[in-house]
Amino acid sequence: MRPAQAVLAGERLALARLLTQVENDTPEGRAALDELFPHTGRAHLVGITGSPGTGKSSLVNQLALLFRRTAGETPALKVAIVAIDPSSPFSGGALLGDRVRMRDLSGDPGVFIRSMASRGALGGLARSTAAVVQVLDAAGFNIILIETVGAGQSEVDIARLAHTTIVVEAPGLGDDIQAIKAGILEIADILVVNKADRPGVENTERALRSMLELANPGRASTGEGPAEGWTPPLLRTIASAGEGIEAVAAAVQAHEQHLKAAGRWRERDIARLQNELEVLVRETLFARWKNTLSEEHYASLLANLHERKLSPYQVLEEVTKSIGNKSMSEE
Amino acid sequence: MRPAQAVLAGERLALARLLTQVENDTPEGRAALDELFPHTGRAHLVGITGSPGTGKSSLVNQLALLFRRTAGETPALKVAIVAIDPSSPFSGGALLGDRVRMRDLSGDPGVFIRSMASRGALGGLARSTAAVVQVLDAAGFNIILIETVGAGQSEVDIARLAHTTIVVEAPGLGDDIQAIKAGILEIADILVVNKADRPGVENTERALRSMLELANPGRASTGEGPAEGWTPPLLRTIASAGEGIEAVAAAVQAHEQHLKAAGRWRERDIARLQNELEVLVRETLFARWKNTLSEEHYASLLANLHERKLSPYQVLEEVTKSIGNKSMSEE
Repeated sequence: MRPAQAVLAGERLALARLLTQVENDTPEGRAALDELFPHTGRAHLVGITGSPGTGKSSLVNQLALLFRRTAGETPALKVAIVAIDPSSPFSGGALLGDRVRMRDLSGDPGVFIRSMASRGALGGLARSTAAVVQVLDAAGFNIILIETVGAGQSEVDIARLAHTTIVVEAPGLGDDIQAIKAGILEIADILVVNKADRPGVENTERALRSMLELANPGRASTGEGPAEGWTPPLLRTIASAGEGIEAVAAAVQAHEQHLKAAGRWRERDIARLQNELEVLVRETLFARWKNTLSEEHYASLLANLHERKLSPYQVLEEVTKSIGNKSMSEE
Repeated sequence: MRPAQAVLAGERLALARLLTQVENDTPEGRAALDELFPHTGRAHLVGITGSPGTGKSSLVNQLALLFRRTAGETPALKVAIVAIDPSSPFSGGALLGDRVRMRDLSGDPGVFIRSMASRGALGGLARSTAAVVQVLDAAGFNIILIETVGAGQSEVDIARLAHTTIVVEAPGLGDDIQAIKAGILEIADILVVNKADRPGVENTERALRSMLELANPGRASTGEGPAEGWTPPLLRTIASAGEGIEAVAAAVQAHEQHLKAAGRWRERDIARLQNELEVLVRETLFARWKNTLSEEHYASLLANLHERKLSPYQVLEEVTKSIGNKSMSEE
């Protein structure tokens, strides 16, 4: 059986193996992605982001447990967790979180956990995350929780990938955290103040509320912020004690309903696919360009740069001068 | 006077204006960068990174003050601070930090502070940071302190840009911070435990030391980690009280001596320029490609993606099929 077929048939080992193939961008992985692609587009992609120390991982675990438990009369939702761990760009990492998770979630066939470490390659993580999420979507997981640590570009990338973005904060994380929040708020569909039993929770909430109000006018016009007509709820949790998780899960499902009713589900799907395509195009064009340069020629150009004989723009001009607009496409 | 000449002549207003030009990647900015490029390569580029709440900004301010004060008999070192603030990818930000800084450093003509907000564009921040640093280098700043918040890709980018990378930690920032450290350590030339008057400082130091030992074997072979023969010192500071700053400044200067003695200064310069060139090439190739597509055609491709009629790889194949290796360059 081909890998894609085995994944569609629900084989976990085949799924794990295929995820490694697509992470490594092998020809087999690409072929399987093509085969699986018609089966994608059904999962609810939920991004969870926030600074280190906010307890994101605990919250993600609790959400996964809750989505499994609250199945009611319908078949239980299948939940996948993609933990994007930028901790070790050079050697790979993402092991600690897994071990903690395994205690609670292991053995449940309706849960699949995948950790990914940033490879340090520009565009690499964005490409491989999109691919991993597609495989899990095709494999029938209904909710895919995508967790990242960090501030900045990674949050923006999550907002582009996910239908719903949860931003997690915690009281008392330090003095420069205020500045961070202002930007993160712009991508938040749901705000969670975790560790709400800590001192300072009222201050954190107050700061978030006033920033939410500030952020509101600018958001609607960017098209990338939260959907119009949706006011991001601000929720308290104590994930380590399992408190407040129901309200977060309910907000996730309310946001899905909102997006679908407002026609934004389709918009976010298209925006995500466009972003994925453009990452692929960038990488492909660059790889082909690099193939055209001999190592000796490239080394001599770099030596000229180092000696300040040629500027980066002058080298750029030289190495791309034959690439006119007409030769770039048949259009 | 052309902008580049005014900058070389030390005019601060011209410098501020040119930085805006190069951040916005205008033709004037590119022309000035070409003109200034022969004057670059002299500054010591020092990256400072760490999670929110570690007090990086205070440390950077204190280092700048110290470098200004410890001039001794020689002319004082000119210091520039580039604060890369990913806080607001959509609307721009980076104002709070500035205001705090101005109290201590404003009015000193030997200090120049520039805040940059991530634009949310892939490769955009890397390109504009490299350009801003080049202008400041040409303008005669001896030490350029480049500060980023966050974990992950931004640290890797700093390590590629800087000669010396300082990683700042602080006690008690939370439970998932351990996982972060493991990766950040691999890019650290100097480790600082700031807020060393807080409880838990011994635990933080112990964890860092054991991770340093673990990280050592892998580092030498990657070529991107700290230079061989250099053991990253682990230093305590209380930046808010100005304590421990001298030792950090001394380590920065010792690392510069080490790099120059070991021939790694040149290597890092070439690696930085190569990275900068490749960012430019990626952006240029992508922009030219996008120009070749009509809006209607692109919209129809995206609709096919959304309807799962074509996979991203199939669209990629179609939109890049005419770009053969031969047409990409005259090589």
